[in-house]
Amino acid sequence: MIRADSLTGLRLAISAARRSGRRVALVPTMGFLHEGHLSLVDLARAHADFVVMSLYVNPLQFGPGEDLDRYPRALERDAALAAERGVDVLYAPGDAQMYPHGAPALTLDAPELTARLCGAFRPGHFQGVLVVVAKLFNQVRPDVAVFGRKDYQQLALVRRMVRDLDMGIEVLGGPIVREADGLAMSSRNVYLSPAERKDAPLLNRALEDADAALAAGDTGTAAIVEVARARLGTSSRIRPQYIELVDPETLAGVDRVVPGHVLALAVHLGSTRLLDNRALGGPAPDRMA
Amino acid sequence: MIRADSLTGLRLAISAARRSGRRVALVPTMGFLHEGHLSLVDLARAHADFVVMSLYVNPLQFGPGEDLDRYPRALERDAALAAERGVDVLYAPGDAQMYPHGAPALTLDAPELTARLCGAFRPGHFQGVLVVVAKLFNQVRPDVAVFGRKDYQQLALVRRMVRDLDMGIEVLGGPIVREADGLAMSSRNVYLSPAERKDAPLLNRALEDADAALAAGDTGTAAIVEVARARLGTSSRIRPQYIELVDPETLAGVDRVVPGHVLALAVHLGSTRLLDNRALGGPAPDRMA
Repeated sequence: MIRADSLTGLRLAISAARRSGRRVALVPTMGFLHEGHLSLVDLARAHADFVVMSLYVNPLQFGPGEDLDRYPRALERDAALAAERGVDVLYAPGDAQMYPHGAPALTLDAPELTARLCGAFRPGHFQGVLVVVAKLFNQVRPDVAVFGRKDYQQLALVRRMVRDLDMGIEVLGGPIVREADGLAMSSRNVYLSPAERKDAPLLNRALEDADAALAAGDTGTAAIVEVARARLGTSSRIRPQYIELVDPETLAGVDRVVPGHVLALAVHLGSTRLLDNRALGGPAPDRMA
Repeated sequence: MIRADSLTGLRLAISAARRSGRRVALVPTMGFLHEGHLSLVDLARAHADFVVMSLYVNPLQFGPGEDLDRYPRALERDAALAAERGVDVLYAPGDAQMYPHGAPALTLDAPELTARLCGAFRPGHFQGVLVVVAKLFNQVRPDVAVFGRKDYQQLALVRRMVRDLDMGIEVLGGPIVREADGLAMSSRNVYLSPAERKDAPLLNRALEDADAALAAGDTGTAAIVEVARARLGTSSRIRPQYIELVDPETLAGVDRVVPGHVLALAVHLGSTRLLDNRALGGPAPDRMA
């Protein structure tokens, strides 16, 4: 595995693969890798010949008071995991490489999509995500890019950006990878206290309950959301931020549920904010680690 | 010259040049070509081996009440002129190719730059320009892109987008090409009545007067702007929209003028809106046709 921390090094590392016509995949991450990230490497490998993983904690997507300073980092461990999983190039740029002129003047948005779900609670977050993803796309020029479905809104936004700007990149969403008890893997799970960690699988349980309700014939959004909310309510530690049923592409709320609609939720559990989601009515889309 | 009106055709037309490692230039235009556009082809040729000209009247950059419907079009004449000047590929997509899903959800902006000069009077204009330029850049993937300096704010914005998003494209600004009497060439000059056309060279005269004032030792912005305004005021038909002295990169207004600062102006002349600008204190940057 080649390691690059500059754009020059990155381009050099990719150029031979590019010249020989290999299909290049990009797996963008913020590091502190877990099986969720590493499963994306497998997916990338299945659709490309050469896998670049980027590792960058993008300050632009953190709001004031969010966890930029304490976001967990473990570069050397990440490099070992990435190499072991078959990543060809690990690109870990610093802020001076990514934002040499400070915050960019150029802004990206898709207001119809960024105003919803997490975007309503994290102003500026997705705009920051779009900028860093656009930069990484232009730096790497991948044929394929792979994102986890856990950050569902991010995936939908990146797909829209690629389509609307003709970026010519195939965007793949990797299934959510879960701990044995159902908790979706997240770098932020390390923030959880033992008691919080014990309650955290309720997010997935809530999604499963909702899916069961749909399977049992409930199609009203309010009823299905209530089923999920009731499950979350069995823990006094969990404070739901939103529980919404949305169209998988537009992220617009739906009144009646059909298979494929996405139930997305965010909660606070202690000082940690956790996300989860599930496409209802389909084959179980997730995998256990 | 190959003509393409679809992305598939475009990519096919470029692929051989790309495979043989030729340097590709893009000259984006809205057609109704004049010597200003064609001089950009020469500039492109001087910096690349393969020249793509795009020709697309982008509805997204026209506001309500602007001249989208009457914007002059002459595709076959343009194709002949482009071929004669040595364009390798003329890419003239339709709206269905550029915006197959209607108006894009994805938006681009650079508020610090788009709020100024023309942007203050044409809300949404530069946001529409940025989207179409980003799309064309992604469709063509040029090594070099060439824009006329007459649309100075557009050039500054595109440069900023390329830098901030790491697009890896060299952006060149072509000198303003003028009629023998100094009027900057523009597709919109055809809107002018004979009487208006007679007064139109006053824009360039105003810029020349301002440059002479700087050369004579005036460095205060207000005094220099007043010199330009006085010249424009010699025609009762000319209604200035703005006359501003700005930093060439940030477009921020300046209090005192140093060589390289740009004097930019927009006026209404009858129902036609005309632009012109000049970098003060330098060697004469423009050429006569």
